[in-house]
Amino acid sequence: MVTHITEEIARSVWYGWGDPARARPLSQAALKLLREELKLSSTEPSQPPVQLSEVRLGPVRLHEEVLAELRAICGPQHVSTEARDRIEHAGGKSTPDLLRRRAGDALDAPDAVVFPADSAEIRQLLELCGRRRLAVVSFGGGTSVVGGVEPLRGRFDGVITVDLRRMDKLLSIDPVSRTATFEAGIRGPAIEAALSAHGFTLGHLPQSHQQATLGGYIATRSAGQASTGYGRSDDLVKSVHLETPVGPFDAGSDAPGTAAGPKLLDVVVGSEGIFGVITSATVKITPAPRHKSYGAWSFPSFEAGVEALRRLRHEGVRGDMPHVCRLSDPDETATTFKLGGPKTELLGRYLALRGQKSPALALLVWEGDARETRARKRRSARIMRQAGGVLLGPLPGESWEHGRFSGPYMRDELLTRGVYVETLETAASWTKAGASYTSVRQAIFDALEEKGGGAYVQAHVSHVYSDGASLYFTFLGGLEEDGLAQNARIKDAASRAIVAAGATITHHHAVGTEHAPYMRAEIGGLGVRVLQGIKDVLDPQGIMNPGKLIPAATEETA
Amino acid sequence: MVTHITEEIARSVWYGWGDPARARPLSQAALKLLREELKLSSTEPSQPPVQLSEVRLGPVRLHEEVLAELRAICGPQHVSTEARDRIEHAGGKSTPDLLRRRAGDALDAPDAVVFPADSAEIRQLLELCGRRRLAVVSFGGGTSVVGGVEPLRGRFDGVITVDLRRMDKLLSIDPVSRTATFEAGIRGPAIEAALSAHGFTLGHLPQSHQQATLGGYIATRSAGQASTGYGRSDDLVKSVHLETPVGPFDAGSDAPGTAAGPKLLDVVVGSEGIFGVITSATVKITPAPRHKSYGAWSFPSFEAGVEALRRLRHEGVRGDMPHVCRLSDPDETATTFKLGGPKTELLGRYLALRGQKSPALALLVWEGDARETRARKRRSARIMRQAGGVLLGPLPGESWEHGRFSGPYMRDELLTRGVYVETLETAASWTKAGASYTSVRQAIFDALEEKGGGAYVQAHVSHVYSDGASLYFTFLGGLEEDGLAQNARIKDAASRAIVAAGATITHHHAVGTEHAPYMRAEIGGLGVRVLQGIKDVLDPQGIMNPGKLIPAATEETA
Repeated sequence: MVTHITEEIARSVWYGWGDPARARPLSQAALKLLREELKLSSTEPSQPPVQLSEVRLGPVRLHEEVLAELRAICGPQHVSTEARDRIEHAGGKSTPDLLRRRAGDALDAPDAVVFPADSAEIRQLLELCGRRRLAVVSFGGGTSVVGGVEPLRGRFDGVITVDLRRMDKLLSIDPVSRTATFEAGIRGPAIEAALSAHGFTLGHLPQSHQQATLGGYIATRSAGQASTGYGRSDDLVKSVHLETPVGPFDAGSDAPGTAAGPKLLDVVVGSEGIFGVITSATVKITPAPRHKSYGAWSFPSFEAGVEALRRLRHEGVRGDMPHVCRLSDPDETATTFKLGGPKTELLGRYLALRGQKSPALALLVWEGDARETRARKRRSARIMRQAGGVLLGPLPGESWEHGRFSGPYMRDELLTRGVYVETLETAASWTKAGASYTSVRQAIFDALEEKGGGAYVQAHVSHVYSDGASLYFTFLGGLEEDGLAQNARIKDAASRAIVAAGATITHHHAVGTEHAPYMRAEIGGLGVRVLQGIKDVLDPQGIMNPGKLIPAATEETA
Repeated sequence: MVTHITEEIARSVWYGWGDPARARPLSQAALKLLREELKLSSTEPSQPPVQLSEVRLGPVRLHEEVLAELRAICGPQHVSTEARDRIEHAGGKSTPDLLRRRAGDALDAPDAVVFPADSAEIRQLLELCGRRRLAVVSFGGGTSVVGGVEPLRGRFDGVITVDLRRMDKLLSIDPVSRTATFEAGIRGPAIEAALSAHGFTLGHLPQSHQQATLGGYIATRSAGQASTGYGRSDDLVKSVHLETPVGPFDAGSDAPGTAAGPKLLDVVVGSEGIFGVITSATVKITPAPRHKSYGAWSFPSFEAGVEALRRLRHEGVRGDMPHVCRLSDPDETATTFKLGGPKTELLGRYLALRGQKSPALALLVWEGDARETRARKRRSARIMRQAGGVLLGPLPGESWEHGRFSGPYMRDELLTRGVYVETLETAASWTKAGASYTSVRQAIFDALEEKGGGAYVQAHVSHVYSDGASLYFTFLGGLEEDGLAQNARIKDAASRAIVAAGATITHHHAVGTEHAPYMRAEIGGLGVRVLQGIKDVLDPQGIMNPGKLIPAATEETA
């Protein structure tokens, strides 16, 4: 049996994605490439984060009696107003979050962080917060890259962050119906470890997997790297227990299909903490695969590769689609080849000989029974070849899998070296995918270069559907003096291009504060009013995660 | 290419399911069986429907100026207050609907029926109805069996039924992204005919397919006979245009995956006309299959058959599941064999020799490429055999497919012969499926026999999921003097048993008026308040389809 190679890790550091010891340091080759592409005179580590002791924090704006009430609910050891806890919960892991924290700004930290033990405590916490006029932020792994866990107090007297890390248990498993119920604070690797003991997997492996929680997956409607095979988090979840300010709400059930009205489960999934706190959920599980087959193919262009993936999905034998299905554009492919060492450099030269001057690399992973996965791979090879693909063997796929969670660590080092880096994603129908790729990429380029600096943009497809595909962009530039303004400018340009292209404002990073201004364009003014109507029922005072998901009345449609 | 054998038919008759000329009359053998099972002294056609001219109708309670306004919007020829139109729109096709109509009661008919041409006219109609305090019922095929289109006026001065039959066009098709956009009033066979011209199918084939509309599919979250393969209507729909009393609302988009908050599309899907009128929708389409393979298997018991289907779903090769996947319980199987003529009678004797005294018949249909479907069938056969199945060859499957839409016609004749018949469905996890079957079946038996009459109950699985299956019950008894009270008693007993079993109150018939009292048990009191909150935003006056889906405050949780 192949279990997903996931590993329990320490919690994230306060100023960045994770333990610097786990990061693969940038090679000299990478630094040289950066200087060239971004026209930088130096990539010396000139902008390290400040020391923790230098971080600026506002006062705790809670009366002592409120703190006493919090302690009475969760136990004194599970209520913290310590600087480190407040700083660690001052936001998520977006580039602006990191820029603020690294510069010593945690003025937006919550007044207190509480670590409840169960749903009953959360119910009491919400009652208290309603009565005391305190905003409430649910916090799982804290890996939001869209401002989803910013402790905004809105019009309230204070803000409490509810960290679910103690709620990390497998509650039950039903191997016959293939479902499992977990507390919402369980992290990705712990989910896999718990299921692995029973021979199952959830198969949900976003890049944040090592830190993110099940509740976070569901609250953000996340997709994982193998979601082409296992489905997105919204496909995997069957029911959710939500604690709202007006009481507990169970959405969904264990019935496999129902026609009993609108699917309220899909109102809770993706609700990003604005209706209540997800405290447990039942998800579909799959037997852990016994085998994985890796394949890598190269295409003469990104367009050719996208067309190959479409044909694989449309013309392939039913059930043959790989679980992991990625396609890098020529820039991402070239960088992978350049930085992958002598072997991959040779690969680039080989492809040039085969006529692929700017190849686009596709990585595929099939999971299942050994014989079946090999048969799938073989049948798929026919389609890939017909679509102009050159087979590269399993190495690039295995190498990608080995480093599949390591990408975000790099950002910490890049920021220290004065390099701006951010990512964003969208999804478009097959018909619109090509134009969306071109226009969003160009918008990012233009915005990066607006102040005269160099720019680098790479992109990949990471999820393939019957009707379209996702597009994920990674982009770098020299870090400008006002990095926050730089980031806002580039994100806004990209977001406007996404809206104009008829693609979605987010494929798997969710909305948070960053995409809220584009929600009117995404779901319409009436859609926003429906969301607000649901919130008015479940959270009449509006204490739950203010400022996320629902655009402020003053925010214009993009 | 195999196209789904569907056929344009005339609209339904006012007192029953359809044209009596299309019904297969009950054979002498069937009538004899009925008399025996139901302890009836006679099955002579003693209770025919009244003549149309005898049907009682209330007055049209609309001012002449309202009618003039309606005519100004839709054109005078598209506004009817004719008796026949009003009677044909006095309800759907539930057994109580038929009992009322057959007895000459159409007192609940709408005041007028309008036939708008497009969304713009519907927008004007809703504005008018809001201003004039008129309730509005959307009407597609009118095949609801749960009271979904009853023209209840609630607290309003009148009720208008909006029949979408003129909105029946394919608006656009995107063969690359495999989607098509239709007006909502298009009926099942017309959908298939339009797509077939492009080599595609929707593959949505509920028993009501010949009459039901796309808008109805979506409004009721329907499932079709091949939904195990193609997915339910909620899997197939990508976006919906809804006209609400506060304006147009587009839910969903053509992006294939999104993390942009709660899925508002899933609020519109299953909304049964209480938020607005669905006027168009974009759905996923599939290339029409080139081949179908039929298989029939017999199992020693229903439990063994259910277990076989579970193993087929869980242990079969990915992608191998048949598109149609049905399993009859021993009663349904025995009746099929008894009434199927000499060949199937022989089949029963053969199975008895093989040790299956009360066999459960499974019918499977694979669709796709000829070689692939045969390979799937072959691999599946291994699992079916290991699970105790005896292969019966393709005949029962082909025979089922031939009569797949004819079942409901029989009800008209049965009622004429004084036989009560109704159906209902649920779905349960694999873990709960056995107990749900037993307890719901028993509850129906007990309720049927409560007044001393005979009873017959048969059941089948028609949809198989990774986590469970549907259960569909058909039951007959002697028609009591108060058939409406008889029906209410039996449906209530069954519904309570479903709730107690932890199954869903409806798998594909939807909620309407009949299941509304059980919605609190299904989605919780807070779930009901969320639905009402959404309605308050989209339909603040409450004019849209009163009395459906949301239970009245006075209705108790079952």
